[in-house]
Amino acid sequence: MSGTEQKQAERRALSRGVPDVGELARAVREGRRAALARAITLVESSRADHQEVAQKLLVELLPDTGKAIRIGFSGAPGVGKSTFTEAFGCYLTAQGLKVAVLAIDPSSARTGGSILGDKTRMEMLARDPNAFIRPSPSGGTLGGVARRTREAMLLVEAAGFDVVIIETVGVGQSETAVADMVDMFLLLLSPGGGDELQGIKRGIMELADLIVVNKADGDLIPAAKRARLEYKTALHLMRPKYPVWAPDVLLASALKGEGLSEVWEAVQGHHKALSEAGELARLRAEQAQAWMWTEIREGLFAALKADKRASDLLPELEKAVAEGRETPTIAARRLLSLVLGGGKAG
Amino acid sequence: MSGTEQKQAERRALSRGVPDVGELARAVREGRRAALARAITLVESSRADHQEVAQKLLVELLPDTGKAIRIGFSGAPGVGKSTFTEAFGCYLTAQGLKVAVLAIDPSSARTGGSILGDKTRMEMLARDPNAFIRPSPSGGTLGGVARRTREAMLLVEAAGFDVVIIETVGVGQSETAVADMVDMFLLLLSPGGGDELQGIKRGIMELADLIVVNKADGDLIPAAKRARLEYKTALHLMRPKYPVWAPDVLLASALKGEGLSEVWEAVQGHHKALSEAGELARLRAEQAQAWMWTEIREGLFAALKADKRASDLLPELEKAVAEGRETPTIAARRLLSLVLGGGKAG
Repeated sequence: MSGTEQKQAERRALSRGVPDVGELARAVREGRRAALARAITLVESSRADHQEVAQKLLVELLPDTGKAIRIGFSGAPGVGKSTFTEAFGCYLTAQGLKVAVLAIDPSSARTGGSILGDKTRMEMLARDPNAFIRPSPSGGTLGGVARRTREAMLLVEAAGFDVVIIETVGVGQSETAVADMVDMFLLLLSPGGGDELQGIKRGIMELADLIVVNKADGDLIPAAKRARLEYKTALHLMRPKYPVWAPDVLLASALKGEGLSEVWEAVQGHHKALSEAGELARLRAEQAQAWMWTEIREGLFAALKADKRASDLLPELEKAVAEGRETPTIAARRLLSLVLGGGKAG
Repeated sequence: MSGTEQKQAERRALSRGVPDVGELARAVREGRRAALARAITLVESSRADHQEVAQKLLVELLPDTGKAIRIGFSGAPGVGKSTFTEAFGCYLTAQGLKVAVLAIDPSSARTGGSILGDKTRMEMLARDPNAFIRPSPSGGTLGGVARRTREAMLLVEAAGFDVVIIETVGVGQSETAVADMVDMFLLLLSPGGGDELQGIKRGIMELADLIVVNKADGDLIPAAKRARLEYKTALHLMRPKYPVWAPDVLLASALKGEGLSEVWEAVQGHHKALSEAGELARLRAEQAQAWMWTEIREGLFAALKADKRASDLLPELEKAVAEGRETPTIAARRLLSLVLGGGKAG
């Protein structure tokens, strides 16, 4: 069954009735895959009754979360991300670890499907009993997709997975969304280096805790080594996120299965260094608080847009401000006094 | 008179009565410095009656704004920013241009003064009749300081200045605040390059439209050239902001007055390239809209924090979320239903 067909089957099962929270939580804790899939479908659903159960389930399972190593994988199309994710995932399961692969792809809301977390592109890993692959949820907005993926991550941890990988292709701000929920951000690049016409999207290099230059095999080895040097130079110029971890650049060939153990060593080294310095706990606490504020902001904005007077006025205000006919401060005040009532001086 | 003494004198003058908007606008348009200083003090004041006049004044002068080249200057302490700003400013006034120097330094709210825009550090420029230097406003929050500086920038443009420089030392997110209001972001660095223990704050390099390696004189020339090469490599790896402008790295010695004409050529080249491609108008329109949304967000947040029930609940929520006792989604919903009333399903 493809990922999409499976989700449809789960939705049909759910529409027959809302599951019992305690039972479902127990089944998830036991690592039962069908229960996990059902729980994630609940979390992804926009139906009010499903959402209510989903949140109760998350509260129930919260003490069982946080135990996995959370890694974000970002790479432009063509860099070999699916091949790398599969090779890396299989490397980990061969060591007896349980690996989950989730994805953030906001475009899936529009196309109705996603190439990320697509089992057909990672057939071997998809059939591995110690691996769990889930396509990106759709969600309308990046915020909606990110929340659902984050909640799926918590469920997957409660189900006992050791490593959670969250993939993104780099549409819009999806890298930042991934970086905001993982412990380590891994940027996958191709050997083109500075000759690449496109270059790395601004702001992405500074997110990286590790850069992996893939396709470092055969004719491309010299180019890969040059690229590695260029990226090391760039990283060296930037202030590191933490005193205890200096981002590094590794070479790998997913196709040949080379470099994977070095990548895993780096991931473990990062995890150890941050944990011992108390930085991992601090990072996760900050991420959780930031997530709460994002949800508060989205709620306030949704309330604003739901206000008919505000949504009538907004396009006019944006146009006036863009054309320099109104100061942004005055425009903001007009909107706020409409929604909050009673003009407040700034 | 120092900048602080001048501001105190202006405040005393203002407290005697609120000026007439039409008169003040006329005087500002004529380029009269005392009127400009009074207008900026009005904009910086938090008194409700002052703010009302300030906003009316800005609306009146809005058609006269937008005519200057807006440059942001950022540099860590020790890089020679005051020396560079003064040398560059004097270079411009010598060509018959009128130059204004403003500043964003959120710490000035706490220390009661700022080293930025400090006339005592740029004595020659401060005495130049074609230059106008203003210390950073205090404002409590970065948002408050940024708004006041932005509004001061509009006033300075209406007064006929050709170039507006906005300085920042790089405290918190002040570089982003500056980048959000200028046409071109210039990053000033020292010749230390990759050997600098600190490195460049993450995210700053990607803001830069131009990097200037200062102190490129005497013994430091070899180091400056190496640094230039390293920064060029790093910039080359990143996707440019615009197709029509590739960020460059220049060498300069503010002390010796070298490299200044090249910097000005680059500034003019950037302005021309963006204007001809329609990118300058687009950038400014986007900045104005983003500013409006920032003001809306701040207004909504202020209303939230002013709500006693919300401000009582918040610390408890933040703690519960940081400690993993509550899901961020549930915490956000608790707050929102308190403030908005009637739980909404996500």
